[in-house]
Amino acid sequence: MREKDFDIKNPRKKFQKTERVPPEGYECANDFFEDMYMDEDMIWMGQNTNHLHDDTIADAMIEAIKEKNYCKYPAPEGFSELKQLILDDLGLKDLEVLLTSGATESLYLVMQALLEPEDNVILSDPGYFIIGDFASRFADEARYVPIYYEENDYKLTPELLRQNMDENTRMVILIDPLNPLGSGYNEDELKEFAEIAKENDLYLLHDVTYKDFAQEHFNMEDYAPGQTLTIYSFSKIFGMAGLRIGGVISSKPIIDSIKNAVVNDLGVNIISQYGAIAGLKSKPKWFDSMRETCFENQRLIKEMIDPIEGVFLPVYPSQANMMVIDLSGAGIDPKVMSNYLVEKKLFTREGEYTSEDFGDRYLRISFSIPTEEIKVFCEEFPKAVEALRTK
Amino acid sequence: MREKDFDIKNPRKKFQKTERVPPEGYECANDFFEDMYMDEDMIWMGQNTNHLHDDTIADAMIEAIKEKNYCKYPAPEGFSELKQLILDDLGLKDLEVLLTSGATESLYLVMQALLEPEDNVILSDPGYFIIGDFASRFADEARYVPIYYEENDYKLTPELLRQNMDENTRMVILIDPLNPLGSGYNEDELKEFAEIAKENDLYLLHDVTYKDFAQEHFNMEDYAPGQTLTIYSFSKIFGMAGLRIGGVISSKPIIDSIKNAVVNDLGVNIISQYGAIAGLKSKPKWFDSMRETCFENQRLIKEMIDPIEGVFLPVYPSQANMMVIDLSGAGIDPKVMSNYLVEKKLFTREGEYTSEDFGDRYLRISFSIPTEEIKVFCEEFPKAVEALRTK
Repeated sequence: MREKDFDIKNPRKKFQKTERVPPEGYECANDFFEDMYMDEDMIWMGQNTNHLHDDTIADAMIEAIKEKNYCKYPAPEGFSELKQLILDDLGLKDLEVLLTSGATESLYLVMQALLEPEDNVILSDPGYFIIGDFASRFADEARYVPIYYEENDYKLTPELLRQNMDENTRMVILIDPLNPLGSGYNEDELKEFAEIAKENDLYLLHDVTYKDFAQEHFNMEDYAPGQTLTIYSFSKIFGMAGLRIGGVISSKPIIDSIKNAVVNDLGVNIISQYGAIAGLKSKPKWFDSMRETCFENQRLIKEMIDPIEGVFLPVYPSQANMMVIDLSGAGIDPKVMSNYLVEKKLFTREGEYTSEDFGDRYLRISFSIPTEEIKVFCEEFPKAVEALRTK
Repeated sequence: MREKDFDIKNPRKKFQKTERVPPEGYECANDFFEDMYMDEDMIWMGQNTNHLHDDTIADAMIEAIKEKNYCKYPAPEGFSELKQLILDDLGLKDLEVLLTSGATESLYLVMQALLEPEDNVILSDPGYFIIGDFASRFADEARYVPIYYEENDYKLTPELLRQNMDENTRMVILIDPLNPLGSGYNEDELKEFAEIAKENDLYLLHDVTYKDFAQEHFNMEDYAPGQTLTIYSFSKIFGMAGLRIGGVISSKPIIDSIKNAVVNDLGVNIISQYGAIAGLKSKPKWFDSMRETCFENQRLIKEMIDPIEGVFLPVYPSQANMMVIDLSGAGIDPKVMSNYLVEKKLFTREGEYTSEDFGDRYLRISFSIPTEEIKVFCEEFPKAVEALRTK
């Protein structure tokens, strides 16, 4: 009946997806993670997750489970209380919040709703690949700007943006602070991005996943209202990565457009919502000490790195809960280093996870873990460098 | 710089979404649900959720929370153990499982990956709107076949399919048992659908969300391998609606194509995965008694309905955990009935939630709740009919 222009049993793939090489000895990344999970002694420095929280968030979720709230569907757009708490946390008002299964889903929905096939999107390399993958699905090009240079402070500058954009640029991705480098934007830079966006009708996607680890942080929304999409995550600051809850904040017309293309009509995990509410309400209680631990951990790492020849920290202090260690001067392949460290029960990430062009130069480590675990890293890392050094 | 062919502050809406009328007295559906939640005395018969479970699933999730497993990301494709348990539960093998944030996300991903703009998709009315909304986004037409008739046993028959399909039909949606009617398919019917699918290169989407409430249930996959997508949910049978976990099962080439368009690269809520594993492992323990309660609850409802003039059950026994009560002979608007019952602390669903054409005829009620709550319903409902009757 139908013309055989396709094979129903072997459908074509509509989208391009960046294939990641699985870690050595594994057929796929999933098996690697399952192994990591099973290993209770593993020190978790590979996912930018946060392991510094007390039991407040956990207790709230346990309470909600005991009440069997999870037997019902969540309210489809989530708890109003949670959305208000997010706005308060950002210090923003008169905006809409869309809750999603992790900030990842927000990134997806934003790209799907706002990009057209002829558009291009400006991102940085190094950066966070998933965003580029989504941009490629819905736009003509995810245009990565190389930023791994001291002269631009290891970040996308307004000048680099001007040099790389053209008349088809519709969106600029500002991860602030930036995964994996930990570089952040100051107020003047945000104002300049806002000017460029206004002049050229651009969307500014301001991913503030790591905002609370920064010494100072500003809202893009304050400078480019109506053109900014703020991406909010509970995975890092609140230590809730496994609970997949996040959101996007923007003006009503933009959020309405995104809602129209929503995937999860039945709402976001209700236990995660209770956890998120508890996290936001208890934040004043743990915020300072969590940051202090992170800054102290960074300081210990810096002190350990400085004397090692051929190894350096491009960005210090990092404004996030992760940093990169450049290994190129010691002639060490970051993948070899990361495999070596896993044997020592230290899970870190080779650079190719966050950069096509510079991934062979650095290792990414997260340090929002207990200081005693950082001390183990500081003991093992110099030995690893000497064992693997080729220069 | 750019030609002003769009307004960045008021983006156009790329997709059509069926707008639901919010319940009386509410500006939007979300506010209504938040109110429902706050009301601890409300009897929950409006969402097909299951409130019959003991603490086994809850305990497993609490244990996982205490171990702080949620601070890490889940393995990106989920726990292998969970995927194997799902295949075992279905009695299927040599297939792939993709876990998603609720079965809703599976429905979305399937449509996105497999449909082309010129295709049409066959569904039934009554049926489950979200599926049609997704079909409309990616195909030319969501073609609803009216099935609310006794002569076709209130379901989509192979004959109705033949009458309504054409050369652009690419997918047939079989919700089995069907939400909202509770009608299910027998083996002969599935075989006939399989034949049609093979002759015409169609995908068969077999949504088995309610399978375990049925007296008998069969796998479409057994009759149309390589063309079937089985949609699996934890929301109903396992009572985990608020946890948003589900999946799609199919052959490797089809799942590979779907994975390429995945939304949640970082995996599915890890606490939900632990709950799902506990649910599947403990199933033999609670399965029989849960079904018995549901059949007993149905029987009580049938006994109560039979003597009421102008009111009847189109499908009895229902093969699901919900049924519809036809109110048309009593001249009662289902919306008026549902609003009336909410006042009596009984949350049910007016027909327009699941049908454009027949929504003015019936009320949908779920009965996977404790029998004492069903008895409250059985006491209130006849009084409600007499209070609202116009015929």
